[in-house]
Amino acid sequence: MKDMRIPILKLHEYLLISVQVDLDDQTAMQFQEDLLSKIHESGATGVVLDLTSVDIIDSFIAKVLGDVVSMADLMGAKVVFTGIQPAVSMTLIDLGIHLQDVPTALDLEQGLIKLRRELEEK
Amino acid sequence: MKDMRIPILKLHEYLLISVQVDLDDQTAMQFQEDLLSKIHESGATGVVLDLTSVDIIDSFIAKVLGDVVSMADLMGAKVVFTGIQPAVSMTLIDLGIHLQDVPTALDLEQGLIKLRRELEEK
Repeated sequence: MKDMRIPILKLHEYLLISVQVDLDDQTAMQFQEDLLSKIHESGATGVVLDLTSVDIIDSFIAKVLGDVVSMADLMGAKVVFTGIQPAVSMTLIDLGIHLQDVPTALDLEQGLIKLRRELEEK
Repeated sequence: MKDMRIPILKLHEYLLISVQVDLDDQTAMQFQEDLLSKIHESGATGVVLDLTSVDIIDSFIAKVLGDVVSMADLMGAKVVFTGIQPAVSMTLIDLGIHLQDVPTALDLEQGLIKLRRELEEK
């Protein structure tokens, strides 16, 4: 089976990720590891994680995504989620996963604007 | 087997793609189709295609990449390649595929700058 990795793009001091596959457990764990390494090696201060193409998530994936935000935060990088679909937002709330401190935005452009604003406020 | 698709990010009027898997024939063809659809639906005027993580390409993939540039051009979108590795550049030249009219740049940031310049010149 082919190695499934989610590409992480670096643009200026930010990392951009667009998740365009349904995440299975292994892909999600691999992504978590890849993202943290990339933050470390690039010294990125912000991450925009676009979930526009993700239709459903389960509790494991939701936890991985929640964790990666806290982990990135510890490493000094702010994560913004964009394009969270209605079904995904319902799953997150149903599961009791409140991404309360995580800024969200409609799309990649808005996410970058929000990230810039968040980082300026610091 | 899992459906392998290369994510295409839209940022302002541009599309950004970072190829972070070794391209097999099917993935490359799927990518060609996805990119053209995305240009059509988004009305993007430019595409940055980052090949930093591609170590080797064969003649089929090289042809697909060359074709996608011409196809995108017909649809009104300019393609810039970034991060072409030494081995890949050698393969392209050895195969007689001269991407002469295709602008190239070192990385994503430089690619976006080049794209902006190319589009302004038109």
